[in-house]
Amino acid sequence: MTTAEQIILTSRPAGTVSLDNFASRQTELPGPAQGQILIRLIWMSLDPYMRGRMDNVKSYIPPFEINAPLEAGAVGEVIQSQNDHYTKGDLVMGMLPWASHAVHDGKGLRKLDPSMGPLQASLGALGMPGMTAWAGLTQVAAAKPGDTVLISAATGAVGSVAGQLAKAKGMTVLGVAGGAEKCAYAVDELGYDACFDHYAPNARDLSGMIREAAPQGVDVYFENVGGKTLQAVLPRMNDFGRVALCGMIAWYDGKGLEDAMALPLAWRIILTRRLRVQGFIVTDFQDQTKEFVSEVAPLLMSGKIKQRESVAQGLSAAPEAFISMLTGGNFGKQLVRIGEAP
Amino acid sequence: MTTAEQIILTSRPAGTVSLDNFASRQTELPGPAQGQILIRLIWMSLDPYMRGRMDNVKSYIPPFEINAPLEAGAVGEVIQSQNDHYTKGDLVMGMLPWASHAVHDGKGLRKLDPSMGPLQASLGALGMPGMTAWAGLTQVAAAKPGDTVLISAATGAVGSVAGQLAKAKGMTVLGVAGGAEKCAYAVDELGYDACFDHYAPNARDLSGMIREAAPQGVDVYFENVGGKTLQAVLPRMNDFGRVALCGMIAWYDGKGLEDAMALPLAWRIILTRRLRVQGFIVTDFQDQTKEFVSEVAPLLMSGKIKQRESVAQGLSAAPEAFISMLTGGNFGKQLVRIGEAP
Repeated sequence: MTTAEQIILTSRPAGTVSLDNFASRQTELPGPAQGQILIRLIWMSLDPYMRGRMDNVKSYIPPFEINAPLEAGAVGEVIQSQNDHYTKGDLVMGMLPWASHAVHDGKGLRKLDPSMGPLQASLGALGMPGMTAWAGLTQVAAAKPGDTVLISAATGAVGSVAGQLAKAKGMTVLGVAGGAEKCAYAVDELGYDACFDHYAPNARDLSGMIREAAPQGVDVYFENVGGKTLQAVLPRMNDFGRVALCGMIAWYDGKGLEDAMALPLAWRIILTRRLRVQGFIVTDFQDQTKEFVSEVAPLLMSGKIKQRESVAQGLSAAPEAFISMLTGGNFGKQLVRIGEAP
Repeated sequence: MTTAEQIILTSRPAGTVSLDNFASRQTELPGPAQGQILIRLIWMSLDPYMRGRMDNVKSYIPPFEINAPLEAGAVGEVIQSQNDHYTKGDLVMGMLPWASHAVHDGKGLRKLDPSMGPLQASLGALGMPGMTAWAGLTQVAAAKPGDTVLISAATGAVGSVAGQLAKAKGMTVLGVAGGAEKCAYAVDELGYDACFDHYAPNARDLSGMIREAAPQGVDVYFENVGGKTLQAVLPRMNDFGRVALCGMIAWYDGKGLEDAMALPLAWRIILTRRLRVQGFIVTDFQDQTKEFVSEVAPLLMSGKIKQRESVAQGLSAAPEAFISMLTGGNFGKQLVRIGEAP
């Protein structure tokens, strides 16, 4: 028996997520049965899409269950194995519970080679967020050299890869982020041509600032946020522009819905400018994983793509870090360090 | 000198278009100068997109000017020519003023062969509306045999061609139209599998009716109207569905904006179902005119595509017919008969 710490969902949030929606518990895990492995978790990823799984809504991925651990992309070490495909000491990544330890049948896990760089990169630029950035920019928006691209949540796990990839491909890259520090980082470290702070006092005229910085207009909008940023960007879109709709974090808590842009206005712009707005989810692009890795891994190795991490220490810090991330409190890829690397 | 009757725009509508926005006037036209022709108009087309040109809004096509004739796709006969490309008696179509006669430099006009069928077909199924239907269905929505397609304004100039074309291509075709008579016509004459009357007392549950008729969901929505129909259809869209955004007539007069579906709800459906919403305008597909004609003309000849006409008699009837069309008062392609065919 192994004593595992778990974070469970005790209730669904009515709007804003609060610490009351979570609880910590100790559970005795039996040793792995035939075909199973016991994993000690090392890193866990917190991502905005998880907010959707807290609601009891039918979507592309089932909701989290009440009184069960939440799930996350995570990296761990196999510490016991009754499965022929795994041996003690293997490093694996996949969907795992918010927990210190987990028993798993091994299906859907991927073995990691620690010589390929820090383990947590498989949760960031070389993992789902990086693949999301690549798929949205290249496959959904079909962005090409010379395009002007605008990326919201510009310094986040997805946005930071999208921005650097766009820059490496010869595009003009604009960002929107929350706070002067993030904007400075976007320009100075990530290579954005300009970045707009949606918290700034003059941010009411975000649309005017975009027009000033990019009088040529915006060809591609990488949409992570919805809200006021969307409202500012849509009127700046060029004819035949593309919107890669990846997320809408500003609206996940059910806030800001009343003063959202009116659908008829958005519809009119989409019609008269002949925009293409396309929703996408990274798992639809799994067949293109090799293409993604072959393009992004070298950029990561050479330092042309870097990723800043925001690390919460210890499993028990996960709920607070998650809540903070939903309102932009993180700066870079949000991780939870659950245990030491071997 | 020729005395021409013209309909001019005297003021821009504040919301709903009224007869007060138009006036009739007599103008003396000089004989055609070198390079010009004098045209006697025979048919004129009234189309919903013209409503947009009445507002002073920058769009893909400039607004109508105040105190000048409005413009329309029209067919006429050349009655005098000082242009080497045209001779007296030629039949031409193109953008012409709302007028009995017009002097024109001949640029952008197309000569018609009267043996190819009734002249007004070039303003309907074989003209801009038909091409719009073809481009939206095949190029924008990439609809394929087996798809379930829903078409709003199902019996209109565009919708009726889209519906019959979809049926001819082996799709399941649903329609939404205003009134029991139009819906019966859609099913009995145009071959729709089902058609829903958005005026019916039970139309509040339009979405439920669509679900019942098409439990398999909707793959393609040919969007002509916006409003409550859009709100009913979006929740019925299948994963990877496509919305060909052609028009939004319910919102052109600035009405119904307050109780429109909220953008965040639409955005969420587009994201989680991975929809592709694309605005389009028929003139962007001019290079594919041959492909369109070669596909649609045979269907028209064989009677697999038919088009009902709603004919206003005389130029002076045009404003009233236009206003009526904007609220669905027409039944089929709205034409104005200005003069006799030769």
